[in-house]
Amino acid sequence: MAPKPSRIVAIYPGSFDPITNGHLDLIQRGARLFDRLIVSILRNESKQPLFSTEERMEMLREVVQDAPNVEVDSFDGLLVQYAASKGATVLLRGIRAVSDYEYELQMALMNRRLAPEIETVSLMSSEAFSFISSRLVKEVIALGGNISGLVPPSVEVRLKHRLHRTAGS
Amino acid sequence: MAPKPSRIVAIYPGSFDPITNGHLDLIQRGARLFDRLIVSILRNESKQPLFSTEERMEMLREVVQDAPNVEVDSFDGLLVQYAASKGATVLLRGIRAVSDYEYELQMALMNRRLAPEIETVSLMSSEAFSFISSRLVKEVIALGGNISGLVPPSVEVRLKHRLHRTAGS
Amino acid sequence: MAPKPSRIVAIYPGSFDPITNGHLDLIQRGARLFDRLIVSILRNESKQPLFSTEERMEMLREVVQDAPNVEVDSFDGLLVQYAASKGATVLLRGIRAVSDYEYELQMALMNRRLAPEIETVSLMSSEAFSFISSRLVKEVIALGGNISGLVPPSVEVRLKHRLHRTAGS
Amino acid sequence: MAPKPSRIVAIYPGSFDPITNGHLDLIQRGARLFDRLIVSILRNESKQPLFSTEERMEMLREVVQDAPNVEVDSFDGLLVQYAASKGATVLLRGIRAVSDYEYELQMALMNRRLAPEIETVSLMSSEAFSFISSRLVKEVIALGGNISGLVPPSVEVRLKHRLHRTAGS
Amino acid sequence: MAPKPSRIVAIYPGSFDPITNGHLDLIQRGARLFDRLIVSILRNESKQPLFSTEERMEMLREVVQDAPNVEVDSFDGLLVQYAASKGATVLLRGIRAVSDYEYELQMALMNRRLAPEIETVSLMSSEAFSFISSRLVKEVIALGGNISGLVPPSVEVRLKHRLHRTAGS
Amino acid sequence: MAPKPSRIVAIYPGSFDPITNGHLDLIQRGARLFDRLIVSILRNESKQPLFSTEERMEMLREVVQDAPNVEVDSFDGLLVQYAASKGATVLLRGIRAVSDYEYELQMALMNRRLAPEIETVSLMSSEAFSFISSRLVKEVIALGGNISGLVPPSVEVRLKHRLHRTAGS
Repeated sequence: MAPKPSRIVAIYPGSFDPITNGHLDLIQRGARLFDRLIVSILRNESKQPLFSTEERMEMLREVVQDAPNVEVDSFDGLLVQYAASKGATVLLRGIRAVSDYEYELQMALMNRRLAPEIETVSLMSSEAFSFISSRLVKEVIALGGNISGLVPPSVEVRLKHRLHRTAGS
Repeated sequence: MAPKPSRIVAIYPGSFDPITNGHLDLIQRGARLFDRLIVSILRNESKQPLFSTEERMEMLREVVQDAPNVEVDSFDGLLVQYAASKGATVLLRGIRAVSDYEYELQMALMNRRLAPEIETVSLMSSEAFSFISSRLVKEVIALGGNISGLVPPSVEVRLKHRLHRTAGS
Repeated sequence: MAPKPSRIVAIYPGSFDPITNGHLDLIQRGARLFDRLIVSILRNESKQPLFSTEERMEMLREVVQDAPNVEVDSFDGLLVQYAASKGATVLLRGIRAVSDYEYELQMALMNRRLAPEIETVSLMSSEAFSFISSRLVKEVIALGGNISGLVPPSVEVRLKHRLHRTAGS
Repeated sequence: MAPKPSRIVAIYPGSFDPITNGHLDLIQRGARLFDRLIVSILRNESKQPLFSTEERMEMLREVVQDAPNVEVDSFDGLLVQYAASKGATVLLRGIRAVSDYEYELQMALMNRRLAPEIETVSLMSSEAFSFISSRLVKEVIALGGNISGLVPPSVEVRLKHRLHRTAGS
Repeated sequence: MAPKPSRIVAIYPGSFDPITNGHLDLIQRGARLFDRLIVSILRNESKQPLFSTEERMEMLREVVQDAPNVEVDSFDGLLVQYAASKGATVLLRGIRAVSDYEYELQMALMNRRLAPEIETVSLMSSEAFSFISSRLVKEVIALGGNISGLVPPSVEVRLKHRLHRTAGS
Repeated sequence: MAPKPSRIVAIYPGSFDPITNGHLDLIQRGARLFDRLIVSILRNESKQPLFSTEERMEMLREVVQDAPNVEVDSFDGLLVQYAASKGATVLLRGIRAVSDYEYELQMALMNRRLAPEIETVSLMSSEAFSFISSRLVKEVIALGGNISGLVPPSVEVRLKHRLHRTAGS
């Protein structure tokens, strides 16, 4: 058996467009499990995000600033290569539903094949956050619905500002 | 946010009647994630196990003896109370299928309600072990099938011996 | 098309051994949908319930006494025949998970075949109650766990009394 | 407990591009449950429907004309705000499969958060209609397949006409 | 690649206690796919069937007598060893639901491990039979429900006779 | 009962953009079940494949050349009409996950409605291939990951060549 590394570095990858309270719950729980947790935004040029990578990193930094072992980053390319470059041995993932589970299983098996030394660790969403996704939050606010409690307050302000500006342009 | 404990103790609870190679894979992966991993047998008097708690602990100890941070124990009562008594903050669980996922989700939510400071961490079964269960292994060997590769060799010997004795009695 | 009956009577069948806050949530929601809601305990002699049918009816009556259009009953035999005898055209069911969904679908299709004029209406469990079942509540309290918030207070008292008496007998 | 309203108004929202016999079955069953059922087309400018909102409303009106308590409408914006504006307290939804169930659960939980007084009621698809979707019907007829029995006859005529015209343009 | 055998023999294993119209549909479909189809009853002494193995074989023979390439048998022991003894290279299975699928997948992977030369072939249940199981049919008739159309007529007669006799004893 | 045809022709339809080792495993298993297996590429002008239909047919032919009863073709239009034109009575499909199962069930029921004489036969993916899809293979190689073992060697060479050329253009 390979021994346990003295310090465990974990990557929590995602789009975070924008971060929701479901993501934040997972970050807080992950920060209690691993010595260092890197929340990292996938830069994907083919998708058109609502917020730029820089804006998303700024929002993430605002909400994790009190957690001494959490940092914010971004990456492109293969996730397991990025993880190795950071000295990480853990990929942290949240599961909200059966369909999430199946997708996560496919990715976990592929990532283990690509890098057997990197482990995918899954946490199940708290029931209070099981129905929240970035996509749904954006839809609700675009239609004028109330999203307080679904995203951090600073994110709510930015979302309203962004969608007003878009609507007014 | 609560800070990360300096050392993470994890419990991997189960019946292990007997341990399979799927369990062993999970133990090896868990031992690389946590500072101390306690594999603990649930003593359940209402079930009639094939092997006694003592025999199951012996089989577990044989297969984990090379892992310095893994130990073997047994418990009864409420899992989260047992975990707290051991200073553990993590429950380790394996998921093989959607139906496992649903059961594990229900247990994880109940356990979080009972003890919010204890986190359930799920690892997905390696594809090579996704179809193995203790129950199925016992069925196959009882019908004369070949289970080599499904359980550790020392467990295979014990299984054959136990089922022969049972058949001959 | 058959016209809508002037008053809709719905049956909410179950074991309710004992009623949980998840059941109570469903009763309250059902009582806002239908003119009359009959919460009805299936008398099943082959199962050994923790509480007798009479005790379960008593507990149900205590928690629904403020709802003018809810009543409590028990039945045996075929559910759709019982529903017809009560003038009910709706069977109310809760769904907590995918495995619930599949079972409920099988029952709904069989019941429609037996009585096409009776409709099965499903409500999805509130996220706060998705992990609660009578079985799990009994397990937790039997092991000494805290179930406040999972069942109505009057049920919690009875559960503690029943399990103490059982343990002391 | 909030009392039951004297009359229940339900919304059955959807794209209905076009209405299928699966939708029609659900409308007929919903019309027997609620005092007034509003079948309402979501106007979504970002999607390119095969039939305009007006054509879809016309097709819906043709097939529900014999149901005295069913009417046809369209909406944009937040579904729960539209429902409130109509005095509706029920959202009616059909479930055909596990993947439907998970999506519907997410929407039901979000809608309850946005408007706790509005209830989502799910009916399970009749087995005869479980494989029919508007998308699949359009694919089959575009490839020359026979869709009689899958959509109302008047819709079949329009579909053939529309797809011929498209093919000939 | 191993060549195709000149004749394919398939086993359709099950309890058939009793055969339903869902089983019969699968037998008819399997008989059009394979040169010889052996419908074979698992003799399981630990279960208490309603009908003896001999009665179940008799009922099966009655309903398949017009199919020249279908025969009826029974077996105990390991399914793949029985299949090999019959020269069979196919195990035929029906899938009605997601939970069936998961169980069938586990069995198919275990059987492939035990006998890689034997293939498990799955047919999906016709929608008309997706809700029928032997267990549910027995429950419905025991409670006085109408099961015509769910089982072959000869089986319905036997079921009524058996359950009357049981009730009267 | 309709008799079994003397020879069974099966169609294995797909995009095969490109063929993976999961597809190849299914072809090899299908070739042992049916007298003639036609692997047939769906020509879909609305999708932008990585490889042209001709290239995909060439890759398929290379990997199946040793199987005497396997041939390669392409089709457009309705699958069941194409199958009938080839004298095929079987559609062969692989299932890797629950979400695959649900989609395959919907298609199987629609195809049975369109052509009741054509049977859909499902084989479950080998566990070693359960996480491989053409889409994921293309993503991994585009990001510089190692795909050996996931696709046939000749396909790996073409994939590298294609994606280099694309990157350099």
